[in-house]
Amino acid sequence: MDELLRWMDFLAIAVLAVSGALVASRKQMDIVGFILIAAVTGFGGGTVRDLLLGRTPVFWLQSPAQIGLCAGLSVFVFFFAQRIESRFRSLLWADAIGLALYAIVGTETALSFGVGPAAAVLLGTVTATFGGILRDIICNEVPLILRKEIYATAAAAGAALFVLLTESGLAREYAFLISAGFVFAIRAIAILRGWSLPTYRRRTTNAFSDDV
Amino acid sequence: MDELLRWMDFLAIAVLAVSGALVASRKQMDIVGFILIAAVTGFGGGTVRDLLLGRTPVFWLQSPAQIGLCAGLSVFVFFFAQRIESRFRSLLWADAIGLALYAIVGTETALSFGVGPAAAVLLGTVTATFGGILRDIICNEVPLILRKEIYATAAAAGAALFVLLTESGLAREYAFLISAGFVFAIRAIAILRGWSLPTYRRRTTNAFSDDV
Amino acid sequence: MDELLRWMDFLAIAVLAVSGALVASRKQMDIVGFILIAAVTGFGGGTVRDLLLGRTPVFWLQSPAQIGLCAGLSVFVFFFAQRIESRFRSLLWADAIGLALYAIVGTETALSFGVGPAAAVLLGTVTATFGGILRDIICNEVPLILRKEIYATAAAAGAALFVLLTESGLAREYAFLISAGFVFAIRAIAILRGWSLPTYRRRTTNAFSDDV
Repeated sequence: MDELLRWMDFLAIAVLAVSGALVASRKQMDIVGFILIAAVTGFGGGTVRDLLLGRTPVFWLQSPAQIGLCAGLSVFVFFFAQRIESRFRSLLWADAIGLALYAIVGTETALSFGVGPAAAVLLGTVTATFGGILRDIICNEVPLILRKEIYATAAAAGAALFVLLTESGLAREYAFLISAGFVFAIRAIAILRGWSLPTYRRRTTNAFSDDV
Repeated sequence: MDELLRWMDFLAIAVLAVSGALVASRKQMDIVGFILIAAVTGFGGGTVRDLLLGRTPVFWLQSPAQIGLCAGLSVFVFFFAQRIESRFRSLLWADAIGLALYAIVGTETALSFGVGPAAAVLLGTVTATFGGILRDIICNEVPLILRKEIYATAAAAGAALFVLLTESGLAREYAFLISAGFVFAIRAIAILRGWSLPTYRRRTTNAFSDDV
Repeated sequence: MDELLRWMDFLAIAVLAVSGALVASRKQMDIVGFILIAAVTGFGGGTVRDLLLGRTPVFWLQSPAQIGLCAGLSVFVFFFAQRIESRFRSLLWADAIGLALYAIVGTETALSFGVGPAAAVLLGTVTATFGGILRDIICNEVPLILRKEIYATAAAAGAALFVLLTESGLAREYAFLISAGFVFAIRAIAILRGWSLPTYRRRTTNAFSDDV
């Protein structure tokens, strides 16, 4: 499991770093801006997880390999992003893989710290979404989390599934792959079909005339 | 005092969670979005307080009851917010109660950690305002803190009053209730009368023509 | 070195606090708003550094002098900002000095914690930029980091130079002054000449028609 977790962690950082670099390219930043936004996106969720659990110094301070990965991918995107047909679509897909992986990595870490099931699901959801939220806030983009299709819900559903599967005795490796696949599948359908859950509906337009 | 503090903490989380859910309803999010924004708003200030003081794992990771409270209230608001005449007004009032309670809870925690008076007032103000700031930033709303009426000032004044009262020997329970009431009273008048302190005034419009 | 570091820390907090207060004046906040934004800007970078390294309680909780400095400068700016010809220019310069100092203070702290060179440069860049990022996000301004001239790059270059100089055996005091001067010089030229690095260039406008 530890080996699997380590690789999934690397993969999550890689795809989220790419998603960060793609937003940097939309904002026409310079190369260091690419690396900084890629690092914030790739390391953001895991950093918040480590801080909340009290695991400091946070993970990337001791991992030159992960920083190198981030920087290398940023440079790559900087030079080749112009070849990508649609950067926004690529961003959505990279973000989806990162969301799926970090949701389960976060939940698993929380459980291994002896945190209860509800808190583990919440921490998994926060870990999965915060890198992207930081990326969008710093870059002045509308956060993906505010878009209509299912987003945080996919992460929360996968985190809950992972808690259920491991508590029911399934080996963690299988539980991990099934749950992460579940998050990605929901998110993929949401992207492809513009899927969304029923959202809160406004009563009338008039009733909110004093809403700023 | 510990008993009182515990209940005030619950009440603060409850009203801030409701304020978060109300913003989620303004943004027409789905149910998990409601719960996530409610949790960020309700737990945000206390989380920042715990991180700054080094109290990790942060409080809500060990408190399923508080997570349940947040989730329950989010579901409630999700189904019943449409019955509320004005969600923005309700949001202002819920936010005001949360601001009052967290300002004093934050200051009291800082003092009990042996932090000096000025730092305790600053930490109380940060604890009181950060949940709401996070809520507004993630949801792309203009932060309440930028509105013209008195906001952070109410929290800071109450935090300072609490430091004064406890240092002058008043029992913490009374100091708590008086100071929290003071914050709420200031904020209530500010909301009802559009009260504001004298703010910085621009000299002329021309002089800032190079301001972006 | 410790003495120098202590003074540079104070100076960094002072100029960043002024930059925060200047943004507060652009937003026409009241006096407590000035102090709060000045504190967030002045203490923000160092707070993130301390949290990531696990140095809690964070530095300003034990430093009434630094809080007093922040508050005093905020009051000063509140009353005298209207005399300043251009608040935006002043903000750029105060921010530039703070960026230079915090980039090297952050890198030096990371190195003294036994963090590797790549992580130290990243932490220095984050320390240097996060106070300003928080200031701009909370105040709803376009982050300086998104402007076209060199910004984060200056911090990263100086942090890298500091790592190189100290590893090559130069006394830390000299390395500090040279590297901080280097950051400031780059940033100064960038401000004066509107200097920028080659940024990512869009291929055509059409190709991104589905970019939101």
